Amino acid sequence: MIKKAVILAGGMGTRLGERTKNHPKGFIKIDNISIVEQSILKLIEAGIETIIIGTGYLSDQYDQLTMKYPQIQCVRNNDYKHTGSMYTLYNLKDHVSEDFLLLESDLIYEKKALRILIKHTEPDVILASEFTHSNDEVFIETDENNLLVNMSKNSRDLRDFNSELTGMTKISIETFKVMCNFAESVFPENKQLDYETALVGISTQRNIYVHKLQDFVWCEIDNEDHLLRAEKYIYPMITLKDKDLPPVKRNVLMNPGPATTTDTVKYAQIVPDICPREEEFGAVMEMIAGELTRLVANPKNYSCVLFGGSGTAAVEATLSSVIGNEAVLIINNGAYGKRMCQIAEVYKLNYIEYKSSSYEAIDLLSLEETIQRSSMEISHLCVVHNETTTGLLNDLNAIGSLCKKYQIQLIVDAMSSYAAIPINMDVTNISYLVASSNKNLQGMAGVSFVIARTEDLVKTQHIPARNFYLHLYSQYKYFLETKQMRFTPPVQTLYALRQAIIEINIEGIEQRYERFSKAWEVLINGITQLGLTYLVQKEHQSKIITAIVEPSIKTYNFEEMHDYFYRKGYTIYPGKPGVQDTFRVANIGDITYKDMELFIIMLENYLRSIGYFPERNE
Amino acid sequence: MIKKAVILAGGMGTRLGERTKNHPKGFIKIDNISIVEQSILKLIEAGIETIIIGTGYLSDQYDQLTMKYPQIQCVRNNDYKHTGSMYTLYNLKDHVSEDFLLLESDLIYEKKALRILIKHTEPDVILASEFTHSNDEVFIETDENNLLVNMSKNSRDLRDFNSELTGMTKISIETFKVMCNFAESVFPENKQLDYETALVGISTQRNIYVHKLQDFVWCEIDNEDHLLRAEKYIYPMITLKDKDLPPVKRNVLMNPGPATTTDTVKYAQIVPDICPREEEFGAVMEMIAGELTRLVANPKNYSCVLFGGSGTAAVEATLSSVIGNEAVLIINNGAYGKRMCQIAEVYKLNYIEYKSSSYEAIDLLSLEETIQRSSMEISHLCVVHNETTTGLLNDLNAIGSLCKKYQIQLIVDAMSSYAAIPINMDVTNISYLVASSNKNLQGMAGVSFVIARTEDLVKTQHIPARNFYLHLYSQYKYFLETKQMRFTPPVQTLYALRQAIIEINIEGIEQRYERFSKAWEVLINGITQLGLTYLVQKEHQSKIITAIVEPSIKTYNFEEMHDYFYRKGYTIYPGKPGVQDTFRVANIGDITYKDMELFIIMLENYLRSIGYFPERNE
Repeated sequence: MIKKAVILAGGMGTRLGERTKNHPKGFIKIDNISIVEQSILKLIEAGIETIIIGTGYLSDQYDQLTMKYPQIQCVRNNDYKHTGSMYTLYNLKDHVSEDFLLLESDLIYEKKALRILIKHTEPDVILASEFTHSNDEVFIETDENNLLVNMSKNSRDLRDFNSELTGMTKISIETFKVMCNFAESVFPENKQLDYETALVGISTQRNIYVHKLQDFVWCEIDNEDHLLRAEKYIYPMITLKDKDLPPVKRNVLMNPGPATTTDTVKYAQIVPDICPREEEFGAVMEMIAGELTRLVANPKNYSCVLFGGSGTAAVEATLSSVIGNEAVLIINNGAYGKRMCQIAEVYKLNYIEYKSSSYEAIDLLSLEETIQRSSMEISHLCVVHNETTTGLLNDLNAIGSLCKKYQIQLIVDAMSSYAAIPINMDVTNISYLVASSNKNLQGMAGVSFVIARTEDLVKTQHIPARNFYLHLYSQYKYFLETKQMRFTPPVQTLYALRQAIIEINIEGIEQRYERFSKAWEVLINGITQLGLTYLVQKEHQSKIITAIVEPSIKTYNFEEMHDYFYRKGYTIYPGKPGVQDTFRVANIGDITYKDMELFIIMLENYLRSIGYFPERNE
Repeated sequence: MIKKAVILAGGMGTRLGERTKNHPKGFIKIDNISIVEQSILKLIEAGIETIIIGTGYLSDQYDQLTMKYPQIQCVRNNDYKHTGSMYTLYNLKDHVSEDFLLLESDLIYEKKALRILIKHTEPDVILASEFTHSNDEVFIETDENNLLVNMSKNSRDLRDFNSELTGMTKISIETFKVMCNFAESVFPENKQLDYETALVGISTQRNIYVHKLQDFVWCEIDNEDHLLRAEKYIYPMITLKDKDLPPVKRNVLMNPGPATTTDTVKYAQIVPDICPREEEFGAVMEMIAGELTRLVANPKNYSCVLFGGSGTAAVEATLSSVIGNEAVLIINNGAYGKRMCQIAEVYKLNYIEYKSSSYEAIDLLSLEETIQRSSMEISHLCVVHNETTTGLLNDLNAIGSLCKKYQIQLIVDAMSSYAAIPINMDVTNISYLVASSNKNLQGMAGVSFVIARTEDLVKTQHIPARNFYLHLYSQYKYFLETKQMRFTPPVQTLYALRQAIIEINIEGIEQRYERFSKAWEVLINGITQLGLTYLVQKEHQSKIITAIVEPSIKTYNFEEMHDYFYRKGYTIYPGKPGVQDTFRVANIGDITYKDMELFIIMLENYLRSIGYFPERNE
């Protein structure tokens, strides 16, 4: 059992400027405790008995830690200014006579990493992760046995790579000796050698196993961006994951939201009771509103208005609050476009319904003609971005340009595209964008929101209110002044949403859409191979939900197929009535293409069970 | 360490009629597993190695259990028809030579009970609970050292009692011998002797310690009512508590909701992901709607309409949906009455505002005159039951009678009285009652609901809709037809609400109000002793929230006092602007009078710190 750890802490951390003027990098605090101390506490909890810190820059501060933690010994690299991390490590060779964990001083990480390294059956193990997109990655090239071949910050140096160095390694004493020999041969020419290069250098002599962790949260703090990211997203995520809460049975929801959520989002609902009128909770909502805006717009010019209610509530809030006596043009090419017409109808708005096929792209020329032909002045245009009725993706950019040309404010129902398909409200010329907590955001249902161009929103205060709870400007103004919602908000759902926001920021919208797209490709290829077709042409699909044409065989029954999948923990969705007979499969939420591969296998089995493949002799 | 358990299972369970015709009582199944087997599994998990079952009626079924569980031995009381439980126990005397746990066969209980009994330092321990109000209780009388004095189903037989027998006992071998001797002396006259009587009989010779558990969930299943209660409330509660989830930091919320919740309600939010359009979730909502109705009305004539949103959303849903062209009379004696006027205003309803003092009872004669004087036909009257502005409780019964007299439909905002103050909608003549999930129900915020007299509600379908999301009849009809909400509901909040409903049913509305009232008494007495006063006369107070007149001393500052309490985990609430200067303290949620005692001590300390007691030399 590993009982020793080495922390490399000699460097000057110059990229952090003022922050490292008076403190070594490891002494940067997050949540009031220095990151090196967080690491030390995790090491001790994991059973490490001796921690040797290779110090250099401002080494006295590390020396002081030995007073607090008897487990610590510090060994100074006196030449830290002119040497690299391997020199600091080499400097410890008289203090290390057994296998050890090697950590960098500027890491925050989930404690499970230590458990995995300590228990690993391989003697030498580099802990690697999926790509963090931190802009400072060290990529790892391995052979087919997961043994180290090469590492580089420049991916072009590598033939192939699929993981990223975390800065946490287990090194056997034998390998350490080989590293020291290697170092001795290099030092005469280059004392700047870093330990990663040394590992690569000896990888032909020693097997260095690269263990890639899925779903592992960590970061290195090398610059201000890293620190901000660490404080806002990575640290809270690690704190929650380190609680080791019991896993929740996983269901794969292939309905168009609420989607499959992570356990961390689920457990984020478990918080001490709080009165939502407290400042502490106001700060939570402010973070949420700011971040939701930032995902699609510049918070300087845009504001997020939160509501307790479903997505439809926020759509109604927008339509009923921002449209005056002028006309609103509503594109109806599916159930959600139709719903906006219903809302306009109930409030007796002057609305023009522009009907379009639910599975074909909007004819933009005809749309423009409608605008031109209108006898009423059109102040707003409403469109659904991704029509979940069929999975048709409407062309926001083209519609946004049209709106610009005719000085029309664009209202977008982005319920099922927000947080998956990248949107820039300013570029696309969107005045109001409506979404909810429980779809691509992977939060819990109960919160919906409107992101509004503040300038436009403020002007709506002069429109007589048509309702109370859903009045957009009142809700905006009250929050602006008090950091409270006007009416009791769904407290726990908001905490879950905060966690979901942390997770979308860690993953990134582009990466999330890539993940969804990959699952969608598997779906499209899979059903095609099974002889099934989809309703919308591939190039017009959102890659988020697919309307699949039902098999034309008498034995097929959607309810039975649904139940077949439901028993296996997969939830599929019926088609919308009125559209050609389809069933629907969404590929959103915390799922991967592997879930979709399983789905396709199960679908084949189901189809076989109803005799769908008569030509095959089975 | 106790390694042995005895289960008494000789009885015929005649009170369960048909259910025990072919099976002994212990073989009643809940969640597909017999209750005796649930008990056996818990005993084994707790480290019990031998379980002796004293059988009798249909003993062969117990014999078969020995095949499945090698830990079990069965010993038959051949004379079970004519003997009591002590005879069955006595019958085992040759099989018991060490301390043991004694359990009845018809119990379901939290597994922690076994842990407590096994580890208890006293050799003989009766496990007792708070009162269950199950209508079949055995009450326990103890001396000042918690030693058994007497037990009886008839509380009048006892001088004093404060706990209830659970049917789980630890008995030392010495005590068992004394019990057997006692039994031998009684049997010639009475073989019907039960073991409880034997325990009382020997309590002068042996110290039998009575250990009363707070917050312990269990029940005995002796009749159909017990079984129904067990299935609906007790069993799900036990299942959740048995998960031993980590406790959540407890805050005492003295704001008027969201209130302090139990950890079980918090953890009820953690469920596998589910699409809310699934039947499985429909059943959850149906249970919720049915139970919410049942708490105040007969579900045959009343319906519950659920909304995702705050309480105000449901108030708006009601006002905007049920009032036609006739006038509505709104009693405004506080912020929530005023809010109803604002809603009426925005929808341009014909409303008459009846203003009344926010801290004095409504003048019913003047109210009646207003009705009589009205030139418009008044179809509805709106009133807030408990005005949290001041804690004034409006007299629903009197207002209900008035409405009856003038054939006016009564709409009650019962946001902060529902589930605490008993209400019978039929008796009180209420057509619509509005409340939410997060106050006295002790659920999470995010769900509100309207309980409507179905006959009245159905007629509102002819009133043109004034909005969409909050349209009451549409929401009702859709749910009736589909068991789904029209729009995505807050799934996890509904699971928490289901758990909160389980807990109100276990506690009982009367008992909850008693608990609140006890805390309120402590508050009123406490502030009075501190020289503070309250705004509303005691007899008109709701006993749920109290508006306390602020101390007239310059050093007093509400924000500072708030922060003083907040740091200690107590949240107090400011007064409503426009009312005499007060601060407010609610005594709702999962709190007891002990929390209020602590609050009073802290309040005294705070007041002392600002020099409020100059006359005392401190």
